[in-house]
Amino acid sequence: MEFFDEAYSGKVFIMSRHSYDDADIVIYGMPMDYTVSFRPGSRFGPNRIREASIGLEEYSPYMDKHLEEINYFDNGDMLLPFGNAARSLEMIEKYVDKLLEDGKFPIGLGGEHLVTWPVIKAMHKKYPDMALIHIDAHADLREEYEGETLSHSTPVRKICDLIGPENVYSFGIRSGMREEFAYAKTSGMTMEKFEVAEPLKKHLPKLAGRHVYVTIDIDVLDPAFAPGTGTAEAGGITSKELLEAIMLIAQSDLKIIGADLVEVAPAYDPSEQTAIAASKFIREILLGWTNKK
Amino acid sequence: MEFFDEAYSGKVFIMSRHSYDDADIVIYGMPMDYTVSFRPGSRFGPNRIREASIGLEEYSPYMDKHLEEINYFDNGDMLLPFGNAARSLEMIEKYVDKLLEDGKFPIGLGGEHLVTWPVIKAMHKKYPDMALIHIDAHADLREEYEGETLSHSTPVRKICDLIGPENVYSFGIRSGMREEFAYAKTSGMTMEKFEVAEPLKKHLPKLAGRHVYVTIDIDVLDPAFAPGTGTAEAGGITSKELLEAIMLIAQSDLKIIGADLVEVAPAYDPSEQTAIAASKFIREILLGWTNKK
Amino acid sequence: MEFFDEAYSGKVFIMSRHSYDDADIVIYGMPMDYTVSFRPGSRFGPNRIREASIGLEEYSPYMDKHLEEINYFDNGDMLLPFGNAARSLEMIEKYVDKLLEDGKFPIGLGGEHLVTWPVIKAMHKKYPDMALIHIDAHADLREEYEGETLSHSTPVRKICDLIGPENVYSFGIRSGMREEFAYAKTSGMTMEKFEVAEPLKKHLPKLAGRHVYVTIDIDVLDPAFAPGTGTAEAGGITSKELLEAIMLIAQSDLKIIGADLVEVAPAYDPSEQTAIAASKFIREILLGWTNKK
Amino acid sequence: MEFFDEAYSGKVFIMSRHSYDDADIVIYGMPMDYTVSFRPGSRFGPNRIREASIGLEEYSPYMDKHLEEINYFDNGDMLLPFGNAARSLEMIEKYVDKLLEDGKFPIGLGGEHLVTWPVIKAMHKKYPDMALIHIDAHADLREEYEGETLSHSTPVRKICDLIGPENVYSFGIRSGMREEFAYAKTSGMTMEKFEVAEPLKKHLPKLAGRHVYVTIDIDVLDPAFAPGTGTAEAGGITSKELLEAIMLIAQSDLKIIGADLVEVAPAYDPSEQTAIAASKFIREILLGWTNKK
Amino acid sequence: MEFFDEAYSGKVFIMSRHSYDDADIVIYGMPMDYTVSFRPGSRFGPNRIREASIGLEEYSPYMDKHLEEINYFDNGDMLLPFGNAARSLEMIEKYVDKLLEDGKFPIGLGGEHLVTWPVIKAMHKKYPDMALIHIDAHADLREEYEGETLSHSTPVRKICDLIGPENVYSFGIRSGMREEFAYAKTSGMTMEKFEVAEPLKKHLPKLAGRHVYVTIDIDVLDPAFAPGTGTAEAGGITSKELLEAIMLIAQSDLKIIGADLVEVAPAYDPSEQTAIAASKFIREILLGWTNKK
Amino acid sequence: MEFFDEAYSGKVFIMSRHSYDDADIVIYGMPMDYTVSFRPGSRFGPNRIREASIGLEEYSPYMDKHLEEINYFDNGDMLLPFGNAARSLEMIEKYVDKLLEDGKFPIGLGGEHLVTWPVIKAMHKKYPDMALIHIDAHADLREEYEGETLSHSTPVRKICDLIGPENVYSFGIRSGMREEFAYAKTSGMTMEKFEVAEPLKKHLPKLAGRHVYVTIDIDVLDPAFAPGTGTAEAGGITSKELLEAIMLIAQSDLKIIGADLVEVAPAYDPSEQTAIAASKFIREILLGWTNKK
Repeated sequence: MEFFDEAYSGKVFIMSRHSYDDADIVIYGMPMDYTVSFRPGSRFGPNRIREASIGLEEYSPYMDKHLEEINYFDNGDMLLPFGNAARSLEMIEKYVDKLLEDGKFPIGLGGEHLVTWPVIKAMHKKYPDMALIHIDAHADLREEYEGETLSHSTPVRKICDLIGPENVYSFGIRSGMREEFAYAKTSGMTMEKFEVAEPLKKHLPKLAGRHVYVTIDIDVLDPAFAPGTGTAEAGGITSKELLEAIMLIAQSDLKIIGADLVEVAPAYDPSEQTAIAASKFIREILLGWTNKK
Repeated sequence: MEFFDEAYSGKVFIMSRHSYDDADIVIYGMPMDYTVSFRPGSRFGPNRIREASIGLEEYSPYMDKHLEEINYFDNGDMLLPFGNAARSLEMIEKYVDKLLEDGKFPIGLGGEHLVTWPVIKAMHKKYPDMALIHIDAHADLREEYEGETLSHSTPVRKICDLIGPENVYSFGIRSGMREEFAYAKTSGMTMEKFEVAEPLKKHLPKLAGRHVYVTIDIDVLDPAFAPGTGTAEAGGITSKELLEAIMLIAQSDLKIIGADLVEVAPAYDPSEQTAIAASKFIREILLGWTNKK
Repeated sequence: MEFFDEAYSGKVFIMSRHSYDDADIVIYGMPMDYTVSFRPGSRFGPNRIREASIGLEEYSPYMDKHLEEINYFDNGDMLLPFGNAARSLEMIEKYVDKLLEDGKFPIGLGGEHLVTWPVIKAMHKKYPDMALIHIDAHADLREEYEGETLSHSTPVRKICDLIGPENVYSFGIRSGMREEFAYAKTSGMTMEKFEVAEPLKKHLPKLAGRHVYVTIDIDVLDPAFAPGTGTAEAGGITSKELLEAIMLIAQSDLKIIGADLVEVAPAYDPSEQTAIAASKFIREILLGWTNKK
Repeated sequence: MEFFDEAYSGKVFIMSRHSYDDADIVIYGMPMDYTVSFRPGSRFGPNRIREASIGLEEYSPYMDKHLEEINYFDNGDMLLPFGNAARSLEMIEKYVDKLLEDGKFPIGLGGEHLVTWPVIKAMHKKYPDMALIHIDAHADLREEYEGETLSHSTPVRKICDLIGPENVYSFGIRSGMREEFAYAKTSGMTMEKFEVAEPLKKHLPKLAGRHVYVTIDIDVLDPAFAPGTGTAEAGGITSKELLEAIMLIAQSDLKIIGADLVEVAPAYDPSEQTAIAASKFIREILLGWTNKK
Repeated sequence: MEFFDEAYSGKVFIMSRHSYDDADIVIYGMPMDYTVSFRPGSRFGPNRIREASIGLEEYSPYMDKHLEEINYFDNGDMLLPFGNAARSLEMIEKYVDKLLEDGKFPIGLGGEHLVTWPVIKAMHKKYPDMALIHIDAHADLREEYEGETLSHSTPVRKICDLIGPENVYSFGIRSGMREEFAYAKTSGMTMEKFEVAEPLKKHLPKLAGRHVYVTIDIDVLDPAFAPGTGTAEAGGITSKELLEAIMLIAQSDLKIIGADLVEVAPAYDPSEQTAIAASKFIREILLGWTNKK
Repeated sequence: MEFFDEAYSGKVFIMSRHSYDDADIVIYGMPMDYTVSFRPGSRFGPNRIREASIGLEEYSPYMDKHLEEINYFDNGDMLLPFGNAARSLEMIEKYVDKLLEDGKFPIGLGGEHLVTWPVIKAMHKKYPDMALIHIDAHADLREEYEGETLSHSTPVRKICDLIGPENVYSFGIRSGMREEFAYAKTSGMTMEKFEVAEPLKKHLPKLAGRHVYVTIDIDVLDPAFAPGTGTAEAGGITSKELLEAIMLIAQSDLKIIGADLVEVAPAYDPSEQTAIAASKFIREILLGWTNKK
């Protein structure tokens, strides 16, 4: 079937290359939202981020770079089995295994935050010395939620158990159980509350030269900036601060090995401002992080 | 990449087969909306129809049939060059040429109604004796709109010129210029105003045994049933009547050669009721029309 | 300041002539909504009806007439003193006095239904033998509401007192106090519940040759067809039935002396379907009623 | 704490009496929505129905009765354990046991449709000869959903097993699995597809003199009339037809022993039309069914 | 009727104790909005704040405290007589009289800001030496509005007259009549424009040891953070700054005697972000202020 | 027709004088949006800004001035020929020619940003030495867009060509093509990225004593503050910063000769917060800039 070179239909992120094989970087969606407790709908997030990318310029004045300078393929959303969390997580892990085997830089779009757990399982096999930067409103450090260990409240705890809490750096956290904040203090992980950009300046130098994966939960933004998310939490950062954080990481000496952006839920986004912001963050991540491996 | 057999991610119409080659029927999106005069946005229609199909059962009590009894592949949206109507229409024509060459039954999702024009150009090459059933609120019989012949107000007129007005049957029409209604009266075409199901009963027998393509503009429904469309027009039919019309065609002696459903515009559809209705119409079309060739 | 002849800015109803003096018919808005008990906002109704008229054709296949065949000026909204109901009503009465003095056919856009009261006071001075056709979900026959006689629940009762209940014909009524329905039965007025078109067929012949004013409350429609109104009431008629009612009146032997359409409230109309329907009703009223004087 | 006699705060259904003990009829909410597969949110339905009741008159021209003629208490929503379906169902059953022990006529507000299952368990203990009238778009006859027998797709099947399929009458069904329609044909239950009022006329005489519980799923309405529901299904009935159905039951010789109205989901109801319609249905049920025991 | 201990139904603020008698603190709603001039709807605010509390954690990382450490009962909304402002205010005053008599710490949810006036009348009887902290976009210092002294624009002026302007401290004010700002300058009251947290730092020490009531109008936030309010005013503070203000008061040496949060209007809050923010502020108030008496 | 002196109908900006002749300042709308590439709808912006002005006070605590101190007439929207960009631009230029000839201070409301181009053509004829302050998210420096030089992406480039790039000062720019940023660097124009207030402090002194026109694109605000615009771009400034910028200009030594505010698009503004903010900016512009000529 014929393609048109500068097609902007909203079905793929703007400037996606036309084949998986030609690309160094792969964007993929993980449309899973079945373990959330409050307001679901993030399964439709990846598609809305793609659609909103139509409104973006291909050049970034933040990075002074153009999307044509890099090389990525938007592989669409995974076909996940609705309602079956365990099986979905297995599929995600295998999918990322394959991306890494093929030498791709993975950029995942959620979906609920639990999808980051199998991604990290795959990343850790390839990069056993990896660290995690986690930008979020919520600690996500629960051991279980209502008796369920596979929950959108547990991924960071599971990751701590896998890669060691001393390799986990959380920023912007403003919500969680008492036990989660206690764990953060005693386990050896790093947690910075409420702010992102300032504490990043402090911690990035410690991570210099290391393999680092970055996961961003869109709800780190205040609901004013990102109303379209499942568990909106007042008191968050601005879009400007998140852009600054992305730039700080781009300018750092980290070896970025992959990234994801999760929890965009279009049902609560009547003006599409959350998808619009998310698509800009993905552009900056593409331009700033993918050549730092 | 691995697939899961009963995956329901909202990215493809439910129960889509996994390859183009295995399918007798192909669903495809034409995300074009650049010639509309009033409220654009139908480029996002096909995706929302797919998403809404998640809420459907696979069995229809109307047709007493199950989607597993048929065999279709959802080939996603075409990648059309944004803003370039002429080039987009060429691409659509070639795309449908290919579908027909491969022996597929085409089911198109719009996009604005102008997309039906290149589809018919392709169909007519294969079926020079074809007729058209056109279900719509608007006559779409203009010769031009603001000096432009490629407009969402002109496709049916162009089709009349190509296949002969005596082979065009319009139903449900409740809006147009005086000149369009005059053309309908004098050209030899058939136009039934305001209603769809009752007049279909009268005209279907005349078309028995013939090759017929059916195009449905979602705005034939009253805005109560389909608010999510560009040029909503009060005084339309109910979803029930459109379902009845689809059944009447299914039970007729026509040889259906293809179909499309156009003008779903999600921006005006805050409760998703238009996409929900459209996805049901597509299910019924799949079950009722695709084995009548 | 210069005008452009075929300007469609949404500020005036489509095809408005350019001066008051050139027109036989005057459209005017009464942006008053301060006596409502439940959900205000109809003050913005007239503007949204004008905006929605952009989406209309100028020709009606219902009436087989074109707006260029008639002659009307959209005089915009009156500047009413916010919150001062008594003074607003005085101003409306004087405004309509002037329209009638100038020989204009008045078409009013509400605003809440109380605006019809001063309009009728003006009409009645010129046409002391007049009758009223009232199409509405609510009886509007209260003597007072929470101690206030100037309320959106009282206008029809006041009109009964002024022009005689035997000259008042209400259609489509499905809500009111027990006392209102009792008054309807015993006062000599005519009230037909739930339906509009069928009972109109019965009563229109009785009004043949008489001067009749028609007031339509958009909430006679079911909320499916007109969600954008202050006191939406389930169980109403369809847009199709209201179009049929307008046509029945157009084809009757009544002498229509003026009309209004009230209670469009844009705040509850996210898809604009109420304004879209209302603008079509106004087009049909313009084409069907204004030459019957 | 002091009450005001004619208080209209939207916290209770209008004209609720001030104490449980003074009332013959009890309205209660069951804010449970955790087993739904598609779009949750019905847990907030009962509150919105109460709020919308502010816009209602206390008198019904359908029934020619006033709410002061009957005697009911709105007991608010039950406090159910979020996410624990089994425990919630137990609590509902015990709650209704108590209502019946106290001689109350129960009117339940959902919540998802599964809540009807424990209500019927309680009703059946008191009325072992009872029958069920079930008005719904969906058959709800599944034996399980994704391996779970406590699902919003299973309640009517469970009720058939308990009270005997020959005592179950379903109306308006337009969606379900092939197996559900097969069960409906072979089990001895009664199922009428697509329509409600006409088939009710046929079947009500058969139920004369019997104890009957009535459950209404708001999604029997077309999404035009009730967009605010989890699994909206195009092709449904109008609000007018459902009002007619309520009146037919009111005029019948049945002994009505209780009723519920479920699946109002405010998140998809931006104009509140679903809650507005539902509150009117509750008023008619209060006026028409509660003295037929 | 049975309760479940950790019930989260959205009907009461999370972790409400089960009886009035067991609680030291009482949350109560004042669903009154009848004197507003622009956009009403705050009568539904308290309910939405309760619903949104479902999304909150019970532990606050701001205060490092858990809701189980305190002891409160959500007594629901008062049943106020719709449309009768004078009577409603009397009822509120008596209600708070009773709360104080019973030794409760009152936390009121509005409703329009006029509700604070009778609350202060009650507070002042018990604490004649009290001061007021007033956080708001609007001065609310009018002597009357359109001739009415009981208006949402007058409460702070009335309070100045009652407790002395020297005991009134307003923060964040960015809208009012010239006369109101003149009064603020000359009367002896304290008014800080545009900002809240910085000026609080300056003034809190002056109030050390005193009995202070705090009233917060949600519109002190910029409409970006709180669109869901009647008279949204651009140029406001962030949610972060209001959280900081609440913390400053919590850490101060004031004796807090009660508080309220008013003017949440759900009709303008399509993503629920205003209710979500308000529920968080209430949690922080519960944790930070209620033990400072 | 009679006027009421303190009328607040939402049809004109609050406190508009009653005639063009009595006023020194003229507000006018330019409802044009036909060249936009992404989301149209700004044609309805001017009307919504007027409607939202109802919620404003007439006194500004920022400027310590009252609208009665100045003298302006809201002349409504121009009647522009829909779809004809070239003709519309001619009409706007002639319209502003006339305003300037009559000695009026023009305050334009857009519409898309292209409308500023003909305004500047008219201004430049009268003030050949003029400079431009341009506050926007987008550079608008393209030479053409999809082959079209009359596009919403080109106006500032055209203005540079006309008045000289050294007289153009852009602030807040965060989006554009690489070529636009290159032009900004090499052409001699001034461009400050991302921020507005701080860089204004640096550049305003350079413009002291000069004739300066100011154009504000509402999308300079972050979408949190102005979701209702066609090409929302994350990472923008706050309403507070834009108010500060307006005050800095008011306090400067510039000779302001006119201003406009463009790109308010109500379709994406469900809570009306964009129109509410825009109406406040217009009030401040009226109070702060119009006497600096």
